[in-house]
Amino acid sequence: MPERSSRRRRARRVPSGPPQLPWRRLKNPYKPIEVLSADQIETIHDASLGVLETIGVDLWCPEAMDIFAAAGAEVDRAERHARFDRGLILEAVAKAPAEFTLTPRNPERAIVMGGNNINFGLVGGPANSTDLDRGRRSGVYEDTLDLIRLSQCLNVLHLVGAGPVAPTDLPVPTRHLDTYNACLTLTDKVFNCSAFGHERVTDAIDMVAIARGISRDEIAKSPSVIGVVNCNSPLRYDDPMLEGIITLARNGQPVIVTPFTLAGAMSPVTIVGALAQQNAEALVGIALSQLVNPGVPVVYGGFTSNVDMKSGAPAFGTPEYAKAVLAGGQLARRYHLPYRSSNVNASNVVDAQAAYESQMSLWSTVMGHANYIMHGAGWLEGGLTASYEKMIIDAEMLQMMAEFMQPLEVSDATLGLDAIADVGPGGHFFGTQHTLDRYETAFYQPMVSDWRNFETWQEAGSLTATQRANGIWKELLARYQQPPMDPAISEELDAFIARRKAEINAQAA
Amino acid sequence: MPERSSRRRRARRVPSGPPQLPWRRLKNPYKPIEVLSADQIETIHDASLGVLETIGVDLWCPEAMDIFAAAGAEVDRAERHARFDRGLILEAVAKAPAEFTLTPRNPERAIVMGGNNINFGLVGGPANSTDLDRGRRSGVYEDTLDLIRLSQCLNVLHLVGAGPVAPTDLPVPTRHLDTYNACLTLTDKVFNCSAFGHERVTDAIDMVAIARGISRDEIAKSPSVIGVVNCNSPLRYDDPMLEGIITLARNGQPVIVTPFTLAGAMSPVTIVGALAQQNAEALVGIALSQLVNPGVPVVYGGFTSNVDMKSGAPAFGTPEYAKAVLAGGQLARRYHLPYRSSNVNASNVVDAQAAYESQMSLWSTVMGHANYIMHGAGWLEGGLTASYEKMIIDAEMLQMMAEFMQPLEVSDATLGLDAIADVGPGGHFFGTQHTLDRYETAFYQPMVSDWRNFETWQEAGSLTATQRANGIWKELLARYQQPPMDPAISEELDAFIARRKAEINAQAA
Repeated sequence: MPERSSRRRRARRVPSGPPQLPWRRLKNPYKPIEVLSADQIETIHDASLGVLETIGVDLWCPEAMDIFAAAGAEVDRAERHARFDRGLILEAVAKAPAEFTLTPRNPERAIVMGGNNINFGLVGGPANSTDLDRGRRSGVYEDTLDLIRLSQCLNVLHLVGAGPVAPTDLPVPTRHLDTYNACLTLTDKVFNCSAFGHERVTDAIDMVAIARGISRDEIAKSPSVIGVVNCNSPLRYDDPMLEGIITLARNGQPVIVTPFTLAGAMSPVTIVGALAQQNAEALVGIALSQLVNPGVPVVYGGFTSNVDMKSGAPAFGTPEYAKAVLAGGQLARRYHLPYRSSNVNASNVVDAQAAYESQMSLWSTVMGHANYIMHGAGWLEGGLTASYEKMIIDAEMLQMMAEFMQPLEVSDATLGLDAIADVGPGGHFFGTQHTLDRYETAFYQPMVSDWRNFETWQEAGSLTATQRANGIWKELLARYQQPPMDPAISEELDAFIARRKAEINAQAA
Repeated sequence: MPERSSRRRRARRVPSGPPQLPWRRLKNPYKPIEVLSADQIETIHDASLGVLETIGVDLWCPEAMDIFAAAGAEVDRAERHARFDRGLILEAVAKAPAEFTLTPRNPERAIVMGGNNINFGLVGGPANSTDLDRGRRSGVYEDTLDLIRLSQCLNVLHLVGAGPVAPTDLPVPTRHLDTYNACLTLTDKVFNCSAFGHERVTDAIDMVAIARGISRDEIAKSPSVIGVVNCNSPLRYDDPMLEGIITLARNGQPVIVTPFTLAGAMSPVTIVGALAQQNAEALVGIALSQLVNPGVPVVYGGFTSNVDMKSGAPAFGTPEYAKAVLAGGQLARRYHLPYRSSNVNASNVVDAQAAYESQMSLWSTVMGHANYIMHGAGWLEGGLTASYEKMIIDAEMLQMMAEFMQPLEVSDATLGLDAIADVGPGGHFFGTQHTLDRYETAFYQPMVSDWRNFETWQEAGSLTATQRANGIWKELLARYQQPPMDPAISEELDAFIARRKAEINAQAA
């Protein structure tokens, strides 16, 4: 394919830095792990519809109540509450597409959600940032910029997330504009918008439309913006969240509906109960998107984990989390919907715990066929902190999963029987033609892992993986190249941001 | 079941230490991940039989040549080489059982190999030991003892391995007797014997027979001893290895036949070529066991990984390793044989790399339905070093996998719809009866992971997982209790060891 080979040539021209795999779309060729039987999935499905029929959900948004009332739901406006017939919910959910494409300003970075497509995203949302040199501190805009630059450098990341850290040095009402601007100008990948209310969503759509040089009508037919809406579990959707769903759907952009169901806190202490509640809550948000705009893309989000019952603290990357992620994938596939999950851990430091909890998450997200693995790189401390070193170690782990997903080819050439015959008993394969023809590309070349022997590693300073990651992010930042943008578009973006800031500040005054 | 509840009572009586799951047998309820199609497996199967027919294998042991010649193989005694008709190999392999039980001196610790049974073992064989206090040094017998004591303390380990570290302060010819003695007296779990030659195998069988109070004939009907035989890849079996197979098989004990096929060094640079060679080599050793004693238990071992093509150093826990482990499981199941794999990494230090490479290994071994996961706890530095802290971190990861393998139960009780109704929108589940009834056992309680918030963790000293593991192994050793042994059996064991040492020293003199 000419497109692929031209991509390869470009990848070779990039100045050499830490070894990386090229940017590429990923598909998981293996069957998903199923932790529940089809019957068990039906039982959870049925239970969650029962929850919607008999208990119902709070909808703290007049427009959402209007939409559901018009569709036949039993809405109590005084209580801001609704109950839903299962037919209403299932008919609406069935209108959602199984797969869709997201196109950023660089169409070569377009990605597919659904099926066995796997996309990795940058951490989004922490209040703090940390690295080995500066320690843990409140996030500032300079962190936002650097972490977004790193996400552009790391080929394995498909999406930039919704801002890797809160820029606490910027005014809250207009922060989203600065973060969008960084995502749009410092990267050419898909980014998440903040789906908190009408304005932040429309700002994102307008800014991406400017960057792509297309209209709002055109972007509605070619989605670019994706946003996460959380249910305020149990069973409550706040006003800005429902506005987010409505605005994204109305503009043809996908929403990721993600209940935040920590078992034992915001949902039953049993993972199966938490999944039933997650499913009920997700189906309401998904149905709303389809009532607003039938056929608009939407993603089933799962974020079921458990709390530490001693302290009430959330736990991540646990065995329970792994099972919930895999079961969540089965539920999403039950409705033929794309699936979102996360690469999470609860460690306070980039150590073995951070790595093994992340791997528990990663294996279950990948083998659960999550299409969007949010917080793929950089998440630490249960999501309270974005870590520069964790971002690099995560990128290594993501690259390893990406290589794991490259299927083995069985052919005469790969069986290498001639090489086995040539080498014969007791020989070695280092110098054979079969090896020489392949050794440069035969195996995954790591970015962080150090395979040198102990003595050589010791002479080089006995650095841990986390210490090596510190050097790698600095090298990547030093080599960062901003993806080009037409100056006319830059000016239009700047003008848009200036106008919107003035409007928002005038409203606040 | 009365047996289980009595075990539970005992577990409760053990003085409290670091939180642990109880000792229990494990089954993986999930379908294995298949990285190759059935057709691809047949192609590799066919290719490997072709290797045995046309290239053949060196057999550096007269008795093994006799056995294969008598079975119809084309043996060249001068070249110590044989070629094998596929019918000969497949007929012999077909006689091996798909499943078998191993019974140590404590029959309550018996384990099952085959099917979806999963057993975790201690690291075996490193020359060095390391911990945070004493650093890296040559292994000594005191390390052997302490690591074996830890393996008794750690409930998640089913097997003690073949000696966690070489006791370099003991004479080589009699070391195996001291190591067996430690395994037999300090633990009551199954241990590996050294399968290196006739004598070490028979010593193990005799010592376990003494410990169980049974005869060699009786132990032949109730296997206790398991040993690993490596092919000296490519395509060469050394004399002591073939003696090991023959002696174990003749005495009714299972052998694990494990080719050491590092792609690019001892096998083709392609994983598929390495697998074809692994399969050819494994089938020869397995067939030999069945020609010696048809129906004797035997295990298909896989140890295919890749080398770092820059340095030639072996790499472990790589994406290639994960695929080879999963494909190896498919090959073992092709022959209805139990499967052995390993929890490996190439890190020089107990850091994030050690953890993520181990997780890549663990997920593939568990999801490849490996029945015996060797080097489950304590392996570091590509197997050159046994680490006390890694042992604890591995035990945590193994416990997490053990919990992951506990299937979700879907029932009215676990769905918790009444709790969801009681709590209602916007409530919380901490105080509900559904939670109170279950919170103590609802979730995995970690041994190493620290889920406290950053400030609390910082006030407690900002310890990494590795530093916490250091405290845990010391606490476990302080609480270690030697499993009781009848004094008459102890005396008989001591007398056996004294006699054998005298014999071996006399031979050497």
